[in-house]
Amino acid sequence: MIKVVLIGSGNVSHHLIEAFAKSKKVEVTQVFSRQKDAVTHLLDSNKITDDYNNLAQADLYIIAVSDDAIAKVLSQLPFENRLVVHTSGSVALDALDKKNRKGSFYPLQTFSKNKTVNFSQIPICLESENETDFELLEKVAQSISDTVFKINSEQRKALHVSAVFVNNFVNHLYQMGNEICEANKVPFEILKPLILETANKVMSLSPKEAQTGPAIRNDMQTIASHIAFLLDENQNNIYKTLTQSIQNNGKKL
Amino acid sequence: MIKVVLIGSGNVSHHLIEAFAKSKKVEVTQVFSRQKDAVTHLLDSNKITDDYNNLAQADLYIIAVSDDAIAKVLSQLPFENRLVVHTSGSVALDALDKKNRKGSFYPLQTFSKNKTVNFSQIPICLESENETDFELLEKVAQSISDTVFKINSEQRKALHVSAVFVNNFVNHLYQMGNEICEANKVPFEILKPLILETANKVMSLSPKEAQTGPAIRNDMQTIASHIAFLLDENQNNIYKTLTQSIQNNGKKL
Repeated sequence: MIKVVLIGSGNVSHHLIEAFAKSKKVEVTQVFSRQKDAVTHLLDSNKITDDYNNLAQADLYIIAVSDDAIAKVLSQLPFENRLVVHTSGSVALDALDKKNRKGSFYPLQTFSKNKTVNFSQIPICLESENETDFELLEKVAQSISDTVFKINSEQRKALHVSAVFVNNFVNHLYQMGNEICEANKVPFEILKPLILETANKVMSLSPKEAQTGPAIRNDMQTIASHIAFLLDENQNNIYKTLTQSIQNNGKKL
Repeated sequence: MIKVVLIGSGNVSHHLIEAFAKSKKVEVTQVFSRQKDAVTHLLDSNKITDDYNNLAQADLYIIAVSDDAIAKVLSQLPFENRLVVHTSGSVALDALDKKNRKGSFYPLQTFSKNKTVNFSQIPICLESENETDFELLEKVAQSISDTVFKINSEQRKALHVSAVFVNNFVNHLYQMGNEICEANKVPFEILKPLILETANKVMSLSPKEAQTGPAIRNDMQTIASHIAFLLDENQNNIYKTLTQSIQNNGKKL
């Protein structure tokens, strides 16, 4: 069994503990959590520590904490030259402490505490400083996911920025749709099949092929009537900005 | 059987012909198509006409043509006082010719010619000028869909604008994500599970509850590094605009 220690007790750590529990090749030997209570429902209490000096020996340490806490965690590790990876999309390897062998183990998905995820469907992006470490990371990742990618720090940053567009920003547009419905006493429910189909479409078509609507059709009459309809300044501004962007994009070869 | 004549041969008409073919209560008596070939694979050629003077007697005429062609079609109908509806999200009833009894039959979904849809899952929004006509529209809609709503012209406009946000604009953000991936030699495939989960999340959580990412966390360091990363002026501008909007929205009560 490959021995893994998880550091952190947030959403990513929770889901990793659950995923590894089903793996036959990887064992979570220990979880470091400042709040021990946060993970007691997921594993034996003797496997939980809140003291860096009690960290167990392991093949791999996975730091699953917020981006700005990663450097601090690394500096507090009381050992050297072990394989230590983080789960962040945006922290480059060369920005980190050299005391240990570094790597990245980035599951690209949005995690919520109360929503179970099927980890086998989640892409995991791996990076390490040497080939031997990469092989270990690959074994660990493949034990829980069907899609594992080798991704360097620059590519990972591009993925993270793209994820902000297709997740954070998309969800914000859902919210604007919701607000427009509420203001006009229409149930948001009516839009849900459209939301699902919009996502499903780009599973088989490219987003460029899937683009529809008044902006790409240059239907100036409908666009003008929508702009007149949107009295909220922010909604109005975003409507104009994205319409313009679709129209300019449509002109590109 | 309720007799329906469809006018138009685009995506919406195609999908309606297929959906009504499975209905036991509604029969498509005839389709008007300027290009007869466009629908010959879907019904008998003796049921297709390209001449308004040959339009058959029916309980309901559904005009499924582009928004700006609706008024012209209505003016060419050689009869009066029959029930004639359109399938547009944005054309208000009072903007239309009074010669016939007007209504709206608006299936809220994105249609592509080569992608089959399950019509039972598509919300249909209905409007008519009187109660008897509404009852007929309701029977027709319920024969193909499980979710039928009474929606007036103003509400329909709000829905249509919302649909632009959650479909057209969302798809454009998918495209920007795709472009960022391509420019950095990362497969867009990696983002697909995230795209699906983002849509799935708002089936059970409100978009406000589902919001994650650097903007809502006020993670200024990550935001600054993303802005520095985005050299494309349009991508950079949209990143800033939507980040600002999420942050302002987070401050609202």
